Amino acid sequence: MDTINIGLFGLGTVGSGFYKVINMAHNAHARIAGICVRNLNKQRDITLEPGILTNNPDDILCNPEINLIVEVIDDAEQAFSIVKRALEKGIPVVSGNKAMIATHLPQLIELQRKYNTALLYDASSCGSIPVIRNLEEYYDNDLLLEVKGILNGSSNYILSQVFDHGQNYRHALCKAQELGFAETDPSFDIKGFDSLFKLVIITVHALGVYVEPQRVFTFGIDSIHDTDIEYAREKNVKIKLVAQVFKTCANKFTMFVMPELVRPERYIYSVDDEYNGVVIRGRCYDRQFMFGKGAGALPTASSILSDVMARRHNYKYEYKKMAFSPRPEYTTDVDLKIYCSFSSTRIDELLPFREITEKYISQNRNYITGYISLQQLIKNRQLLDAPDVFIANIETPRF
Amino acid sequence: MDTINIGLFGLGTVGSGFYKVINMAHNAHARIAGICVRNLNKQRDITLEPGILTNNPDDILCNPEINLIVEVIDDAEQAFSIVKRALEKGIPVVSGNKAMIATHLPQLIELQRKYNTALLYDASSCGSIPVIRNLEEYYDNDLLLEVKGILNGSSNYILSQVFDHGQNYRHALCKAQELGFAETDPSFDIKGFDSLFKLVIITVHALGVYVEPQRVFTFGIDSIHDTDIEYAREKNVKIKLVAQVFKTCANKFTMFVMPELVRPERYIYSVDDEYNGVVIRGRCYDRQFMFGKGAGALPTASSILSDVMARRHNYKYEYKKMAFSPRPEYTTDVDLKIYCSFSSTRIDELLPFREITEKYISQNRNYITGYISLQQLIKNRQLLDAPDVFIANIETPRF
Repeated sequence: MDTINIGLFGLGTVGSGFYKVINMAHNAHARIAGICVRNLNKQRDITLEPGILTNNPDDILCNPEINLIVEVIDDAEQAFSIVKRALEKGIPVVSGNKAMIATHLPQLIELQRKYNTALLYDASSCGSIPVIRNLEEYYDNDLLLEVKGILNGSSNYILSQVFDHGQNYRHALCKAQELGFAETDPSFDIKGFDSLFKLVIITVHALGVYVEPQRVFTFGIDSIHDTDIEYAREKNVKIKLVAQVFKTCANKFTMFVMPELVRPERYIYSVDDEYNGVVIRGRCYDRQFMFGKGAGALPTASSILSDVMARRHNYKYEYKKMAFSPRPEYTTDVDLKIYCSFSSTRIDELLPFREITEKYISQNRNYITGYISLQQLIKNRQLLDAPDVFIANIETPRF
Repeated sequence: MDTINIGLFGLGTVGSGFYKVINMAHNAHARIAGICVRNLNKQRDITLEPGILTNNPDDILCNPEINLIVEVIDDAEQAFSIVKRALEKGIPVVSGNKAMIATHLPQLIELQRKYNTALLYDASSCGSIPVIRNLEEYYDNDLLLEVKGILNGSSNYILSQVFDHGQNYRHALCKAQELGFAETDPSFDIKGFDSLFKLVIITVHALGVYVEPQRVFTFGIDSIHDTDIEYAREKNVKIKLVAQVFKTCANKFTMFVMPELVRPERYIYSVDDEYNGVVIRGRCYDRQFMFGKGAGALPTASSILSDVMARRHNYKYEYKKMAFSPRPEYTTDVDLKIYCSFSSTRIDELLPFREITEKYISQNRNYITGYISLQQLIKNRQLLDAPDVFIANIETPRF
């Protein structure tokens, strides 16, 4: 591969960012040969070569000059159909679409094998932090015990605004969208789905096991109440949206996305604003912490550049841990200590806690803390989905 | 390569740690087939297979079963001769010996090319943090501007003891040695040579340029004075031993190892004890921070395990940036703002500051702050080596 001739799908925030970044990276010997967009006539703030735009995917996929596809469109199903077609033609793909990847990963792995080509997606998880690559290449052994972090820059930005700058939740959400940190559909960020998809991808590379997104307990920050923020302040903790996967014993692991009451001595406590931070824990090396911008056009685009350049050396994910024997098994049979606040829904009577450690009832708002299994949280999902209910993880057991 | 049969040179702190780690990593499909030590009769705290020890390097290097050498001995020149012989025989090597690598890197690169084999040494820099691999594989483009960090766990442990626990410097040094953080010769750590060697290696992978260690300004912490610690406390900064390489303009870079007055808002401010922390700065992604245990047997051994497993996939460093065009040029023509304290040596009269910003003279101890070029620091090295002189970097220009 002498020059990398890129076919780019999508010219939104990340796509435009990538267009700028590729023009700074002379030693990449890469150029954008064609761009497929939905709307040809949209006003754009970058100057494009004439004739480079098309709205017909075939103009890119059937262009024999193009030897790499970069896919950064918004729609997950459309993205999947493009990526699938590219892989079937043997064209390697770099993608940042976590929803698409998390949902279709087994099929995408199979397509890579069948057509002997590659799909790289480090940009899909944690923007500019090379989490996937490091899990795949460096933490590629039996020592890994846990990956835990703040994976969504937008919800973290909102919580930082609320916590550190005393802003109102709605206002903070609008500001995040203005700054280009939030996805078009904000529920993707604040309901925890963005973190969930990233966690599903991370788990494949951390432990070699694919768990369907719908099997993973996911609770967002959209039902957070002023009293929760007061509670956290009183206890000198911050509420962060945390995604985690960890071994519960030698041959089992669990995973979930949930707000967490984070104490100041934790690494992720100081991950504020649009930043992401990931803690990788293992036997022997204890904890490692990686920290960087997790949202924004240019940080994500620079991560895509890293994947593009990796193709210069024919790099592909080997999914080595999927061949590990034995592989750990996914379980939800794990006890968590949680905080749960509510108004009208009588959580204290309805949710089967194994042990209640605190209960506060007032005219305004109530909360309870105690031990409950993750299984029970999943079973009682409907109860937790009541708009007056908010939960946060306090403590998880560690292996 | 079905099973990796390792020939291990050295069974000191790191060697014994590696022996333990390899026995935990079943999916590595690697075993230690032979160990070369200096003293066969030394008492050791690990149980070895009978007949596995030898004191004759040839028993390892000429054993046709052995397909990987792990070299973790203390002596740099002896290490070089072993690594050279292994590479000449086409046997790949994993090494943690920063002095050896930093001193002989051009020749080691040439040997790898000539004999089409590999030398991996991620464990040589920052223990368990995958800095080299990430610079080589992920930050492998034109965007990189700076790598800066605390690269020596032992001197950082000592400074933390002094700063945060009010300990005496000598006592802290002894404790570091007891805990196995310090090298056999402590001057290696506290005079900054360990950081220097790591910085030389990092610079090859960050910017594609090899700079001989003796050309790099290196100042340690061994002449630190109680009044320096008081000064730092008053100013609400910590003194850390910092290694850095950064671009001064589009086509030039500089590098040095020097104590630094680090402000609380900096990432490295909170890197305490035996931890290492590295900040990677680039266009587009701004700053990324990696943090983890930088010293100790098991963290370093787990890093060696990562390099061993990388060989399963025939991984080798490509030294890609050495082929970048143009490569930036090393310069010492850069102005630094420094703090310099002294007793009898009249630094204020002898050191050619471009601008003096503060001067404090007392019966006890004196200090001066001001701007001076790195070139002048190198020229006046002898002056700075007077035992009553201590310097620390306050500010560096940024491109």
